[in-house]
Amino acid sequence: MKIALVGIGKIALDQHVPALASSPDWELAATVSRHGRAPGIEAFPRIEDMLDARPDIGAVSLCLPPVPRFEAAQAVLRAGRHLMLEKPPGATLAEVHILRDLAQAQGVTLYATWHSRVAHAVAAAKAWLADRVIHEGRITWREDVRKWHPGQDWIFQAGGMGVFDPGINALSILTEILPMPVHLRAAELDFPENRQAPIAARLALSGNITADFDFRQQGPQTWDMEFWTDAGRLALRLGGNVLEIDGADAGGEASIMGEYPALYARMAELVRRGASEVDLSPMVLVADAFTLGSRNTVDAFEF
Amino acid sequence: MKIALVGIGKIALDQHVPALASSPDWELAATVSRHGRAPGIEAFPRIEDMLDARPDIGAVSLCLPPVPRFEAAQAVLRAGRHLMLEKPPGATLAEVHILRDLAQAQGVTLYATWHSRVAHAVAAAKAWLADRVIHEGRITWREDVRKWHPGQDWIFQAGGMGVFDPGINALSILTEILPMPVHLRAAELDFPENRQAPIAARLALSGNITADFDFRQQGPQTWDMEFWTDAGRLALRLGGNVLEIDGADAGGEASIMGEYPALYARMAELVRRGASEVDLSPMVLVADAFTLGSRNTVDAFEF
Repeated sequence: MKIALVGIGKIALDQHVPALASSPDWELAATVSRHGRAPGIEAFPRIEDMLDARPDIGAVSLCLPPVPRFEAAQAVLRAGRHLMLEKPPGATLAEVHILRDLAQAQGVTLYATWHSRVAHAVAAAKAWLADRVIHEGRITWREDVRKWHPGQDWIFQAGGMGVFDPGINALSILTEILPMPVHLRAAELDFPENRQAPIAARLALSGNITADFDFRQQGPQTWDMEFWTDAGRLALRLGGNVLEIDGADAGGEASIMGEYPALYARMAELVRRGASEVDLSPMVLVADAFTLGSRNTVDAFEF
Repeated sequence: MKIALVGIGKIALDQHVPALASSPDWELAATVSRHGRAPGIEAFPRIEDMLDARPDIGAVSLCLPPVPRFEAAQAVLRAGRHLMLEKPPGATLAEVHILRDLAQAQGVTLYATWHSRVAHAVAAAKAWLADRVIHEGRITWREDVRKWHPGQDWIFQAGGMGVFDPGINALSILTEILPMPVHLRAAELDFPENRQAPIAARLALSGNITADFDFRQQGPQTWDMEFWTDAGRLALRLGGNVLEIDGADAGGEASIMGEYPALYARMAELVRRGASEVDLSPMVLVADAFTLGSRNTVDAFEF
């Protein structure tokens, strides 16, 4: 099946292009971007031109930042093409509700992806937790924004979500593996005095679960979550890729597929089944944190 | 049918108690409040005590501020009673999703009310707009917080929503009367330097609709919305109570029932039908405004 990739930036070149090159399901048939290109692939500057010129391309994957994503997503669905969205699926919840209804009306697949949910050890962690009683959970997601988003000013603009850009990955894993629903009880958000999105956040969730997100981490980077249960302690490390039970490696059941190849395999399955998958629960927790959270002003941040 | 009222503060005494006194459907059988009472009605300090002592009371109406509401709501639903919630239905979206699922599992009615949706002229405005093309919309919701929420510090605490406490009434009308879905494009929020919730907000919504919310209005108070359409200009004034078409009064079709009597009539109908009504679209727009909006710091506010 032919697919077009829209937004040829860092994540597209690092992840989407290689995943499509190795996919048994998909052929990368076109790209759309103001500046970026993928070697040897037909490139369009505007999405409308690609949709008009290439009726043979039945699916589109968007790798745009959240704020400009909605117009492109609407254009794809109105043109009757299947649509796959990078996380988060939009800048607002309301616009994703509109896309979900539009995809249903058009009879096409909408897949709002959460790449961390298909990290190697997430399915095994979910299976292990399924019949446990969780006493406490602790999420630590601390990375260096200068290393992972060099110069990407949009991430600190209004709607860029700041530290929730990586933090939503943790929340996407959490909402996938927990055996019960979770909601936010309180939150504290640190906004740099010169920025419109938080650089750090601390969340208190139901079920005695806390989350510590920080974009200022230097040295070792941490993407860990730990759960203390009636049957011992589960730790999920490296962004869902390593599973430990009571401190011992328990990776034997781990998936061997990389995150983006797994997403494209899932997209192919959804298209074949005529189904959609749009789970907004990670995004709801982020919107709730912005709504309910108290705000601190912290030191200015420059890349 | 017997009903208990939880949270005997200003809104309960001003609106809920009189509405229940005049209702042909309901008998106010108990109140729950730390301090407040309604004359002649059995009073409990704790909700669990009321639920245990009065199995004859099949429904509960909560008039608590959003943050403490969730625990009480869960207790009501777990006790198998029907539940009616003041607006907004919770401090977070995730907790209302949990309540909705719990009500469904328990087989009881959950009614998340939006009192402004049953203001006198809202249904007539909706009917008039149904087959119009809207070119522009303008919402102006400006009131004096000192007059309407005297000394209610919770409204400016984290989760209190600030000016969105009245603003969500406007959004509840908007999402009721528009013939198409609406989403937020941009927002600007003014936070007093000593407070954790905004005192003013300006929203840019899809469909060329803007909203201007302000809690600092002195003199005349304004709760208006105007729509310029292909068939003239509709104005809905006084919080949905007065309808004008092209500047002339068009109130002839208006509902004659007050807002809270209409809510309790609707609750009775839902209970009799075994149905629930939980439309979160006004709350989604507010969460989206907190997530997407840029923030200004403005002068400190004291009641």
